[in-house]
Amino acid sequence: MPSYTAPTRDMQFVLHDVLNISASSIPGYDELDRDFTAAILDEAGKIASEVLSPLNPVGDREGCTLENGVVRTPEGFKAAFETVRQGGWTSLDCDPDYGGQGLPYLISTAVGEMFSASNMAFNMYQGLTHGAYNAIHAHGSDAQKRTYLPKLVSSEWGGTMNLTEPHCGTDLGLIRTKAVPQDDGTYQISGQKIWISAGEHDMVDNIIHLVLAKLPDAPDGVKGISLFIVPKFLVNEDGSLGERNALSCGGLEEKMGIHGNATCVMHYDGATAYLVGEPHKGMRAMFTMMNEARLGVGLQGYAQGEVAYQNALGFALDRLQGRDVTGTQAPDKPADPIIVHPDVRRNLMDQKAFVEGARAFTFWGASMIDAHVRAEDADAEQMISLLTPVIKGFLTDKGFETTVLAQQTLGGSGFTREWGMEQFVRDARITMIYEGTNGIQALDLVGRKLAQNGGKAIMAVFDLMKGYIKDNAGQDAEFDAQFLDPLKAASKDLQAAGTYFMQHGMKAPNNALSGSYDFMHLFGHVCLGLMWARMAKAAKAGVDEGRGDTAFLEAKLATGRHYMSRHLPMTATHLARIRTGADTVMALEPEQFASAAG
Amino acid sequence: MPSYTAPTRDMQFVLHDVLNISASSIPGYDELDRDFTAAILDEAGKIASEVLSPLNPVGDREGCTLENGVVRTPEGFKAAFETVRQGGWTSLDCDPDYGGQGLPYLISTAVGEMFSASNMAFNMYQGLTHGAYNAIHAHGSDAQKRTYLPKLVSSEWGGTMNLTEPHCGTDLGLIRTKAVPQDDGTYQISGQKIWISAGEHDMVDNIIHLVLAKLPDAPDGVKGISLFIVPKFLVNEDGSLGERNALSCGGLEEKMGIHGNATCVMHYDGATAYLVGEPHKGMRAMFTMMNEARLGVGLQGYAQGEVAYQNALGFALDRLQGRDVTGTQAPDKPADPIIVHPDVRRNLMDQKAFVEGARAFTFWGASMIDAHVRAEDADAEQMISLLTPVIKGFLTDKGFETTVLAQQTLGGSGFTREWGMEQFVRDARITMIYEGTNGIQALDLVGRKLAQNGGKAIMAVFDLMKGYIKDNAGQDAEFDAQFLDPLKAASKDLQAAGTYFMQHGMKAPNNALSGSYDFMHLFGHVCLGLMWARMAKAAKAGVDEGRGDTAFLEAKLATGRHYMSRHLPMTATHLARIRTGADTVMALEPEQFASAAG
Repeated sequence: MPSYTAPTRDMQFVLHDVLNISASSIPGYDELDRDFTAAILDEAGKIASEVLSPLNPVGDREGCTLENGVVRTPEGFKAAFETVRQGGWTSLDCDPDYGGQGLPYLISTAVGEMFSASNMAFNMYQGLTHGAYNAIHAHGSDAQKRTYLPKLVSSEWGGTMNLTEPHCGTDLGLIRTKAVPQDDGTYQISGQKIWISAGEHDMVDNIIHLVLAKLPDAPDGVKGISLFIVPKFLVNEDGSLGERNALSCGGLEEKMGIHGNATCVMHYDGATAYLVGEPHKGMRAMFTMMNEARLGVGLQGYAQGEVAYQNALGFALDRLQGRDVTGTQAPDKPADPIIVHPDVRRNLMDQKAFVEGARAFTFWGASMIDAHVRAEDADAEQMISLLTPVIKGFLTDKGFETTVLAQQTLGGSGFTREWGMEQFVRDARITMIYEGTNGIQALDLVGRKLAQNGGKAIMAVFDLMKGYIKDNAGQDAEFDAQFLDPLKAASKDLQAAGTYFMQHGMKAPNNALSGSYDFMHLFGHVCLGLMWARMAKAAKAGVDEGRGDTAFLEAKLATGRHYMSRHLPMTATHLARIRTGADTVMALEPEQFASAAG
Repeated sequence: MPSYTAPTRDMQFVLHDVLNISASSIPGYDELDRDFTAAILDEAGKIASEVLSPLNPVGDREGCTLENGVVRTPEGFKAAFETVRQGGWTSLDCDPDYGGQGLPYLISTAVGEMFSASNMAFNMYQGLTHGAYNAIHAHGSDAQKRTYLPKLVSSEWGGTMNLTEPHCGTDLGLIRTKAVPQDDGTYQISGQKIWISAGEHDMVDNIIHLVLAKLPDAPDGVKGISLFIVPKFLVNEDGSLGERNALSCGGLEEKMGIHGNATCVMHYDGATAYLVGEPHKGMRAMFTMMNEARLGVGLQGYAQGEVAYQNALGFALDRLQGRDVTGTQAPDKPADPIIVHPDVRRNLMDQKAFVEGARAFTFWGASMIDAHVRAEDADAEQMISLLTPVIKGFLTDKGFETTVLAQQTLGGSGFTREWGMEQFVRDARITMIYEGTNGIQALDLVGRKLAQNGGKAIMAVFDLMKGYIKDNAGQDAEFDAQFLDPLKAASKDLQAAGTYFMQHGMKAPNNALSGSYDFMHLFGHVCLGLMWARMAKAAKAGVDEGRGDTAFLEAKLATGRHYMSRHLPMTATHLARIRTGADTVMALEPEQFASAAG
C-alpha cells in the first residue's frame, strides 16, 4: 500500500526562504513566521499521513453507492471527515465573521496540497464546499450569508457547483435548466445537471447546491445565466433544517478515477431556489471564484505527482535488480537497488524537479491571490488572472505525466492495483479535464488574457523576468550560467511567441489559437524556470551562510540545474510549433480526418 | 460504446504505395498484390469491427475470474476465439509444415494491428500462443515440433512465456525456479512465476507453458538459465491429452487495464518439463524471438492510439459546443461541432500524424523481419535489431500519449466509463512496461545495440538517411523545404547525439545512459520523419499522376507537414538533454532524493 509523508521541509523552504512571507506587507502575513507555519504544517501532515492516506485505496476500491436516493461514501470516509472538521481544517482561510480562522489563502493552499496528495477524492468534498462558501461570501445577500456560511465554514453542511448539463459543458450559453420566479421572491428550478461532484453524500447534514439556470426572460447565451442557491433541505428562520427540497441524485457516474468522490446526476424538479446576486449575472459571479478554483486544480495535479514520486522513490531504493554499471554498490545483496541505474535516476529527477517547481509556482500564485483579496493589489490581481490558466493547465498536464513516470519506476508492479501507483494516474487524469479542460485554459490564456487591457499583464511578466535577471546577474558566474542564461533564453522564446501572435493572430485568430496549447506550456516552463532560479538563489545563500540543512539545499541546487538544463529547453520546441500557426492544424476538411479508413 | 473501423485504405497505401511490397525480392512478397492484401484486410477488418470491438468493453467490465483453479474469460470471448480460429486468423504466418499459411510476417502484422486495436486484451491470448509457437519452432527438437506446433498453429492449444518471479523481472539472472533432471530425460520444475499472461483460461484444450528455470549445475546469472516446455496436460504418444501436470494458477492479478486477459500467478510443483535447446542457453533462445515480440508490443501501443483517435474524431464531429471564431459553421444548430476549434483540431492532427507514421514505421520493420527470416538478409537483421527498441519504446510511449490526447478530445465524457475512452488509456499503459520496460529498451539501444559490431548498424542508419535525402533532393523545392530539410536537421541531431555518446560515454558510461531515453525518442522521431517523407513522396506522386483518392492523398501530405513542422523539432530538445550527460541526473546521493519531506 502506498504511503505519504508531508513535504514540510520543502514547504517551509518555499514559504520562508524563497517567498519570505513574514516580511510581506500583505495583511495577515506578518504572523506567518517559521514556527507558526511549521506547527500548522506538521499537524496537517499527520492527518494526511495517518488518516487520509490509508483511506485512499479504500475509497478507490469501494467507490460510492447510490441506493434509494442515498449516496454512501466509502468505509471510513465519514469518520475521517469528522476528524478533519473538528480539527478546524475546513475553515482555515474562512471569514472570522462566520466562524473561520481568517488565515491567508496561502496557508490553506499548503494544507490543501497535503490533503489532496494523500486522498484527492476525499478532499474534493471539502473543496466543493469551499467553492460554495466563496460564491455566497462574494455574491450572496447578508441574509444568505448569515443563513449558509457558518454551517459551510464548519463543514456541517456541504456545497456543490452545478454547471454542466448533458448537452453543454464548456458552452454554458446552451443551458436549459429553468428558474421560474414565485410570488414569495423565491424561484422554482427544473432541469438536469450532470457531473456534480459531491452532489449527494452521507457526511453532512445538508447540501447547498449552487446552480446555474435561466430565468424566463433571459437573454440568449452566457449573458442570460443566473446563479441560485438550492439547498437539499430548506432552512427554517431559526437555522434548523426544514422540508426536503424537490431535488434528487438520479445516478452516479462510473469513471476512470476519484472513485471515492460521488459524481452525481442531479434532478431538479421545481426545487425551491434563491437568486444569488443579480439576474443574468451568474457567469460573472462564477468567474470571480475562478482563479482560486483553478489554482486548486493545478495543485491537485502536482500533488498527485508528489505522492506518486514519493512512492516511486521508495520502490527505487528497495527493489534490487541489476548492478551499477560503474561498479557494484551492494556486494552483500543479490543485486543493487535500482536507483543506481541512470535511467531510473533520470526518471526520478524529472519527477522531483517538476513537483518542487510546481509547488513554488503555486504558492507564489496563492500569495498573489492573498495580495489581491487582502490588500486590494490590482497588479497582483492582473498577474494571477494571467497566470491562472498556466497554473491549471500546465501543472495538471505535467502532474499527470509525473504520475505516469512514477508508475513507470515500478515496472510491472506499477500496473497492478496492489501497489497503488495506477490509482494516482487515474485520479490525476481528471485534473486535466474539470474546471475547464486544459484546451479551454489555453484558449482563455491566448484568446482572452493576453490581450486584456492592451496586453498589460503579459508586459508585466516580461518586465518581471527582465528585472529579475538584471537584478541577479553578474554576482556569481556559475549561477548566471546555470540559471540566468537558460531563463533568459526561455523568456526570449516566450516573448517571441507573443510577437508571433501579435503579427499573425490579429487578422487570422486561428494562427494564435493553433498555438495556444504550446504557448500555455511554454509559459509554464518559463514560470518554473523563474521559480527554480529563485529557489537556487535561496539555496545557495543558505549553503554559503551555513544555514539550514546542507544536504537538502544542495539537492535543491542540483534539482534546479536538472530543470534548467533538461526541461527548460522545451521552450524552443514550443516556439517552433507556435510559429507554424494554423498552417497544418487547419489544413484538412473535417471529412478528411477519417479518410484512412474504409 | 466506442467503435472501430479498420484503416484498410491507409494500410494499402503503406503496403503498396510506400513500401511497394509486391516488387520486393523477399520470398512470398511477389504474391502480395493490391487485390490479395485488400481481400485479407477487408475480411480481418470485419472480424475486428463486428466481433472483437463490441467485446472490448465487456472484457474490461467483467475481467477474468478464478474459481477452483479454473479461469473463466469474459462472456463472449470463447465464441469470438472460435470465430477467429476457424477463420484461420491465428495461423497466417505460421509454417505450412505444421498447418500454417506461410504468409509473410508483414501480413500478420497488419491483421494484428486490427485485432489489437479492436480488442487488445483478447488478442493477447493469441499473441502469447504465437510467441510459444515461435520459440518451439526456432529451438525445439523435431519431436517437440511435431508434438506441439500443429495444435499451437490451429490455436486448439494456447501458449505462454514464463519469465518473471516475484523478486526478479528485468534481472532474470536472479531466477529461483528449479529444474531437476529425471532418469527418463524429462525434468521436474518447481517454482513460482508471476504476471503470466494467458497462464490459465477456458478457450483452449491445453496450454503449453514455456518456462525459464535453472538446472542444478547452472552457472550464476543469466548464463545459467534454461528453457523448458511445461504443458498443462501431458501429451500422449498419439497426440491425445494425458494426465494433468503438476502446475496451477494460484491467483489473478488485479491491474489497471487489459482486464479481459488473465494475468496469472503460476505455481510449478515438480511439474514434468522438457528441455528446449541446450542447457543454460535459455536466454539466447528467448532473445531470438525478441525482435518480433517487441515489434508486436510497439504495434499494440499505436493500435490503441488508432482506435482512440477514431473515437475522438467521431466525438469531435458530433459534439456541438461553441462557435467557430472565424464565423459560424452550422447556423441551423445551437452550436458548431467542436472540430471547428483550432485546439481540438491541433489535438486530432497530433493523434493522426503519430498513428499513421507509426503504422508505416512498424510495417517497414515487419518487412525487415521478413527479409531476415525469409531471405537471410543480414543487413536487414542488423537494422531491425537496432530499430526494435525504438519501435517498442517510442511507439508505446507515444501510443499511450495518443490515447490520453484522444480522451482529452471528449472532455468530461472522456473520463467516464460509458464512453470507453479511458479503457484505451488503461490498456495502452501496459505496453510501456511489459516485454522489457521502455527504460530497458533505451538501455538495450544505447548500452548494447549502438556499439554492436563497431557501430555498424547505426552507421547504416546514417547512410540510409543521407542516401534518402540525396536521392530525393532537388526535384521539388516545396518537398525539399517541407520534408527533406526538417529530416536533414533531425538526422544531424541524431548523429550529434551519437557523437556525444562516443566522446563522453566510453570512459563514463553514465553520460550515455543518462541520455538513453532521450536518444530512443530522438531516434523515433527521425524514423517517423523518414516515414513521413516517404509517405509524402508517394502521396505527391499519386496526386500528380491523378491516381487514387485525392482527398486521402492530400490529407496525407498535410498530415506529413504537420508531423515535420510540429513534432520533428523535438529532436533538438532531446539532443540538448542528452548533451547534459550524467551531470544533473547522477548528482544526488540516494538519500537526498527524499530530503524535501519530514
